[in-house]
Amino acid sequence: MVTYVYDFAQGNKDEKDLLGGKGANLAEMTNLGLPVPPGFTISTEACRAYLKNGGEPDGLADEVSAHLKSLEEAMGRSLGAPGDPLLVSVRSGAKFSMPGMMETVLNVGLNDESVQGLARSSDNPRFAYDSYRRLLQMFGSTVLGIEGETFRDALDDLKKERGTTADTDLGVEDLQELIETYKAIIEKETGRSFPQEPREQLDLAVRAVFDSWNTDRAVLYRRQEQIPEDLGTAVNVQAMVFGNFGMDSGSGVCFTRDPASGDQGVYGDYLQNAQGEDVVAGIRNTVSLADMAEVDKRSHDELLAIMTKLEQHYRDMCDIEFTVERGKLWMLQTRVGKRTPEAAFRIAVHMADEGLIDMDEALGRVTGEQLANLMFPRFDEKAERTLLAKGMNASPGAAVGKAVFDWATAVEWADRGEDVILVRKETTPDDLHGMMVARGVLTSRGGKTSHAAVVARGMGRTCVCGAEALDVDAREGLFAVRNGPTVHEGDVISIDGSTGEVFLGAVPVTPSSVVRYFEGEDVDEPLVGAVRRLIEHADASRRMKVRTNADTAEDAARARRFGAQGIGLCRTEHMFLGERRQLVENLIVAEDYDGQEAALAELLPLQRQDFIDIFEAMDGLPVTIRLIDPPLHEFLPDLTELSVALAIADSRGQRKKRDRKLLAAVQRLHEQNPMLGLRGVRLGIAIPHLFSMQARAILEAAATRLKAGGDVLPEIMIPLVATVRELDIVRAQIAEVAAAVEEEQGIEIPHLVGTMIELPRAAMTAGKIAGSADFFSFGTNDLTQMTWGFSRDDVEASFFSTYLEQGIFPVSPFESLDTEGVGALVRKASESGRAVNDKLKLGVCGEHGGDPASIHFFDEVGLDYVSCSPFRVPVARLEAGRSALG
Amino acid sequence: MVTYVYDFAQGNKDEKDLLGGKGANLAEMTNLGLPVPPGFTISTEACRAYLKNGGEPDGLADEVSAHLKSLEEAMGRSLGAPGDPLLVSVRSGAKFSMPGMMETVLNVGLNDESVQGLARSSDNPRFAYDSYRRLLQMFGSTVLGIEGETFRDALDDLKKERGTTADTDLGVEDLQELIETYKAIIEKETGRSFPQEPREQLDLAVRAVFDSWNTDRAVLYRRQEQIPEDLGTAVNVQAMVFGNFGMDSGSGVCFTRDPASGDQGVYGDYLQNAQGEDVVAGIRNTVSLADMAEVDKRSHDELLAIMTKLEQHYRDMCDIEFTVERGKLWMLQTRVGKRTPEAAFRIAVHMADEGLIDMDEALGRVTGEQLANLMFPRFDEKAERTLLAKGMNASPGAAVGKAVFDWATAVEWADRGEDVILVRKETTPDDLHGMMVARGVLTSRGGKTSHAAVVARGMGRTCVCGAEALDVDAREGLFAVRNGPTVHEGDVISIDGSTGEVFLGAVPVTPSSVVRYFEGEDVDEPLVGAVRRLIEHADASRRMKVRTNADTAEDAARARRFGAQGIGLCRTEHMFLGERRQLVENLIVAEDYDGQEAALAELLPLQRQDFIDIFEAMDGLPVTIRLIDPPLHEFLPDLTELSVALAIADSRGQRKKRDRKLLAAVQRLHEQNPMLGLRGVRLGIAIPHLFSMQARAILEAAATRLKAGGDVLPEIMIPLVATVRELDIVRAQIAEVAAAVEEEQGIEIPHLVGTMIELPRAAMTAGKIAGSADFFSFGTNDLTQMTWGFSRDDVEASFFSTYLEQGIFPVSPFESLDTEGVGALVRKASESGRAVNDKLKLGVCGEHGGDPASIHFFDEVGLDYVSCSPFRVPVARLEAGRSALG
Repeated sequence: MVTYVYDFAQGNKDEKDLLGGKGANLAEMTNLGLPVPPGFTISTEACRAYLKNGGEPDGLADEVSAHLKSLEEAMGRSLGAPGDPLLVSVRSGAKFSMPGMMETVLNVGLNDESVQGLARSSDNPRFAYDSYRRLLQMFGSTVLGIEGETFRDALDDLKKERGTTADTDLGVEDLQELIETYKAIIEKETGRSFPQEPREQLDLAVRAVFDSWNTDRAVLYRRQEQIPEDLGTAVNVQAMVFGNFGMDSGSGVCFTRDPASGDQGVYGDYLQNAQGEDVVAGIRNTVSLADMAEVDKRSHDELLAIMTKLEQHYRDMCDIEFTVERGKLWMLQTRVGKRTPEAAFRIAVHMADEGLIDMDEALGRVTGEQLANLMFPRFDEKAERTLLAKGMNASPGAAVGKAVFDWATAVEWADRGEDVILVRKETTPDDLHGMMVARGVLTSRGGKTSHAAVVARGMGRTCVCGAEALDVDAREGLFAVRNGPTVHEGDVISIDGSTGEVFLGAVPVTPSSVVRYFEGEDVDEPLVGAVRRLIEHADASRRMKVRTNADTAEDAARARRFGAQGIGLCRTEHMFLGERRQLVENLIVAEDYDGQEAALAELLPLQRQDFIDIFEAMDGLPVTIRLIDPPLHEFLPDLTELSVALAIADSRGQRKKRDRKLLAAVQRLHEQNPMLGLRGVRLGIAIPHLFSMQARAILEAAATRLKAGGDVLPEIMIPLVATVRELDIVRAQIAEVAAAVEEEQGIEIPHLVGTMIELPRAAMTAGKIAGSADFFSFGTNDLTQMTWGFSRDDVEASFFSTYLEQGIFPVSPFESLDTEGVGALVRKASESGRAVNDKLKLGVCGEHGGDPASIHFFDEVGLDYVSCSPFRVPVARLEAGRSALG
Repeated sequence: MVTYVYDFAQGNKDEKDLLGGKGANLAEMTNLGLPVPPGFTISTEACRAYLKNGGEPDGLADEVSAHLKSLEEAMGRSLGAPGDPLLVSVRSGAKFSMPGMMETVLNVGLNDESVQGLARSSDNPRFAYDSYRRLLQMFGSTVLGIEGETFRDALDDLKKERGTTADTDLGVEDLQELIETYKAIIEKETGRSFPQEPREQLDLAVRAVFDSWNTDRAVLYRRQEQIPEDLGTAVNVQAMVFGNFGMDSGSGVCFTRDPASGDQGVYGDYLQNAQGEDVVAGIRNTVSLADMAEVDKRSHDELLAIMTKLEQHYRDMCDIEFTVERGKLWMLQTRVGKRTPEAAFRIAVHMADEGLIDMDEALGRVTGEQLANLMFPRFDEKAERTLLAKGMNASPGAAVGKAVFDWATAVEWADRGEDVILVRKETTPDDLHGMMVARGVLTSRGGKTSHAAVVARGMGRTCVCGAEALDVDAREGLFAVRNGPTVHEGDVISIDGSTGEVFLGAVPVTPSSVVRYFEGEDVDEPLVGAVRRLIEHADASRRMKVRTNADTAEDAARARRFGAQGIGLCRTEHMFLGERRQLVENLIVAEDYDGQEAALAELLPLQRQDFIDIFEAMDGLPVTIRLIDPPLHEFLPDLTELSVALAIADSRGQRKKRDRKLLAAVQRLHEQNPMLGLRGVRLGIAIPHLFSMQARAILEAAATRLKAGGDVLPEIMIPLVATVRELDIVRAQIAEVAAAVEEEQGIEIPHLVGTMIELPRAAMTAGKIAGSADFFSFGTNDLTQMTWGFSRDDVEASFFSTYLEQGIFPVSPFESLDTEGVGALVRKASESGRAVNDKLKLGVCGEHGGDPASIHFFDEVGLDYVSCSPFRVPVARLEAGRSALG
């Protein structure tokens, strides 16, 4: 026989699977001997059985009866009894917090009769009728599914009638009248009257909590937060206590440390004669915990003792809800508290210093995402600022610019050098160009999966979305702020993508102190000390190395300061831009082999110097250099633009010989799908002297450094290999060049030759490829594109937002590795590669190399290193350390 | 101790691995008691050991000595002995025939002394000195690596000096002079004199055969023919017999049946007083076997008896080489003979009728590729024709048209409705447009992996390449035929892509009799009878069903006549072309949901009628309909063209409002990589009413047919699914439509909903997808594109030719499935899909469904059906039958 219901005394904090988060913590507090209003938890198992059967499982009703009886005995009162009724709250509580998604019903047990008993026993009729009114309203909307609006309208009507705007101005008779109105609404909307039977109220409320698991928004929320669908929620039934009995009562929330700064010392708010919801709603000014001592020293001291006990017990900062009912302190909830990134680092280190946890655990309590957040520039906290609104923190950063309301203006103004913030109700693919040139994007609609959010994150652009207080009128070129000013096109605004705040005017931006520290500055800030100690501990703990993606000596040097242990990806095509583009054009338009050779001969010394500089910056560390990857037409003008320009020239009778030759080359090289065209190793095989020139530049640069006493470890990487035969051919070319350069230079040049694994076929045949490769580097960007069959450039704007909203994926697979599909290929390739070649070095150089969740996956698969952009290096160091803790 | 050398009597025909093809068949004939000149075979194992060690393996020399001794004893003569020398031939013989790739040295054993002995013992000094001359020439070029040209030039010089053009006019003294010249050449080119020691000659010749395994062209040939690199070749050392002793001697080749028509009865050529090479070279007119009976009845009768014996023994048509030396018949080689496609079918059925083989074996002896060849139209055999040249049969078909020499002219002439043949020295990607509009492509250079061949095959265009007798001069717009006429631009030519022949003028084309038979005509031809019987046997044998890819009722009806058992792929986007393109444009430029709905409402009845017609044509058989797949911009004008047109209009001050609106839509929908963009199921999710409209059209059409007493089995197929969630969403849309239509029509409509598996991710997660799919259809075209990361449109012209030449793949992965990479995904998906859903139907609808090698793979993986173009249906039936034989 399954047990579905547990008394609070029967559980503990580790039983979140069965009891949900709230239930497990109520049980823990009960067993710690803390003053918790008694009650019981209906398990998630009951919920799952209910959802599966479409009804309460056998035995549940009996168990509830038995536990209710115990509760009544403990309280000395019966549920909804006419004289002195026991009232209960019915609250959902899933394993993972789903704020605002699930249902709560308070004051269950009140009915036409018991409300009178409560009025008498509490000696507070207004309180009793207000409680009943609240029950009807909550029950009507939550359990019976009536629009909440209907009840609120009735309340507003009554207040208007009474000439007031505050609920508290309504007296007993007003409330009684409202109760009748509410009951009539229920009768009208549902065809039956409000259930007077207390037990029926309870059962219906429990059922409503169960059902709330499957509402559309709950399903959507879970998809987005990657919470499994099949967990179900627990239901907590608990004796009601009331903070609104009078001045000897009250409610509060508190934290055992400051959740914003991480400072040691308690922190909290208390509101006399109030219920929990009033504290959060901010209808009156709360007082600090210190001031609470003035009003109710006994409860205050008891609370502080309990807070200490809870923090010691949970070994973490706790977030607590409590109520004082007529001088008696009751604990309503506790959990490990949420905190800012700064607080997370500082609290973790403090607790380690206090001996509460060890450094491993401290490291486990901070995340790479938090560290990344701390590395963005911020708005100066001391600067004056006018907050206009708050939206979702969709993509981090601090951006300042002139408000513009359409993409064309954004492009126009940006072209003349102005910083702009693109402001839209919501964005569409048409806004793409505007988003690209803007410093930041602000929308009044949509959440973290809206088009604006998805695209801005994808391009690393600061974004605040869903700032609902803004009324955006693109036609007029302005937005009006609810209860605030109107901002016109050209007015400067500032948006904080880390907090979702929107400010009027230019708020000064300060660089991150954490970045200043990494750059080598001596920064005396508590936060920096905490970051330093945790990252040092991560370095000492991790198995995986962290390299960087860097194409220049400057980037390499910075990444090295940030802790990079080598270069995992040096892209050589970036060396062909700027003035050198002309040389590549020469190569492309060359009409014969000699012309190509001549163009390459001009590129060789330039490339060689690039590599000398990079090797010097990374002296003693490995440098992986990828031979040229993109299709050559990327170095040429755009087909459409050039065609139009020439058509216009034609119509004017102008002759443009060079352009015409160029157009012929562009047309010849034009590809329907350049991503799937002549690029990577295919270029190297089609134009063999191209790769040979690059190999020569690398090896000559290495020889130069070696002769200068340097320590170089070049790793030559071949992109886009699909089959081992391609690698064999290029490897043979490189071997020939290497033999020649070693002969010419009279020196042995140590070097490795390996390949990207970025095509599904390479992953599927990695066992064969490994026989010819010294290393594999997973190019997870392209591997994601090919495995899913979509190119990031094309799809992020066109349908990713829809896909995220529909939960087709919980996060863009370009942001975080799709472990099920792409990851399965990475795992397969790693295993089969190592099986053939146990010395095979394995790394990753896609953008996933800097993504926390992906880093853990790569560690588990056994890669030797991850490589990421310089700014992500500290994040990767931290996460690789965390991952090593298991 | 390994044995490296085998006497002919020690082997048999099944030991090709060890003895090579020639050696195994010589052994077989020896053991059959046929008159084979004695000899021995040095095994492939010896070759492998030699190539591995870089020298002869231990013991080989001793074994050769022992076998040579036996040979000398059997012949009663010693190798190169001064008096009456034994001479031997040294011939390569690999497991698989590699014509022209490997080396042969005849007359080994002759030197300055033994040539005199031979002159005496043969009583024919001219024969002896000519044999010595031939040894020096063959040994010099083959073993010593001297350019063959050098010897030929010396011979020509001598002939010129003597005022003759025929070798036979040279007398003994001339030949002696030539021998001295040849010896001087050898001394000059190699720095040492021709080895006089017979055994040294033998050893060097054996070594040369071993080395010939690794020449560049042999390596290339093996890559192209998919012959493994590590087999090595055997070497056959055999006593020489001579057909050029006089009129009582001769050489011939014969077949036990006609290899061209398949007619019963022997067939062959005999040439008196000649060696084998003379027969092939055609320097004098040969006589038929019947005529041979007149000259040498005894040898003739013996030969015919042996031919019967060999055919009975090999149970197949044999190809035989023989020599008569002074009235004594010697068998020099036999093997199962090559034959034309027509002969293959007819011989197989004849032999089954004769009881030599059973029908299973008969089926095993014909191929789908042969059948496909028989289904092309052919040039009328009875029509007069002027053969200009013969090249490689690069892509089958019979094409007639005006010769053009550049792509621009091809396009221009084709635009005005003329048939053209594009003639080039060789093609490059620039010629692509010209190839697309031409009826056929003809080149004077390059083989079956040349750009022209690869691209033409890819687009199903007739192609003859490498017709070296043509001297193409594109600038002058003509080609000159060696020893023939000159063809100018505009002259009509005919090319046969199945034979490689090039004809002057328009040769009349006749439709294939096999196709006429499939089309239902009563064709009384022996070939058709043979095809019918074998394909019927294939149908009775096969497990896999064969469906067709058809988008119209006409195609469906034809495919049904060709034996299709349903439609595996009905593409709905083709229904949006022509006049309906306007409706799609309306859908795309619609500015809101209502506009889209209106456009779709217009498309619905049109689509419905399409499906009614197709269901009727396929009544009683399943019809898989793929919902719209390509990106919508494919229905709009090209971006560049439209931009140019508008720029020109602008410059002329013209207003084009609709075009401008269209351009905006084209720009909005433009994608960098349309293959990787908003298409397939993504469209269905982004514009849900689009798929719903299509589902409604399908289901309403099914209802109409059902009510008319028809039998419909619609299978709705969702393209480009990457994750099960996409399928779930669309499946739910379709279920909603189905419920509505069933309600409206008052009838249950049986239908399946399934998905394409065409993305690597779908294959990797097929276990999950299978839970929501009634069927999988492998879209191996896209799966190949994504797995390899190249798009057919872009790469076939740009680097496939290089890739095939370098052996990176032996055949285009778009022609024949890449079983190692793409096939591994198909297998994985099939296995994991079936494991989850044992009712899952599995099929393939990529072009590989009609490719013989791929069909065997799909059968082995366990697919339920393949689907291919109507014309490929008979091929697939045949191959599925052959595959079932195991």
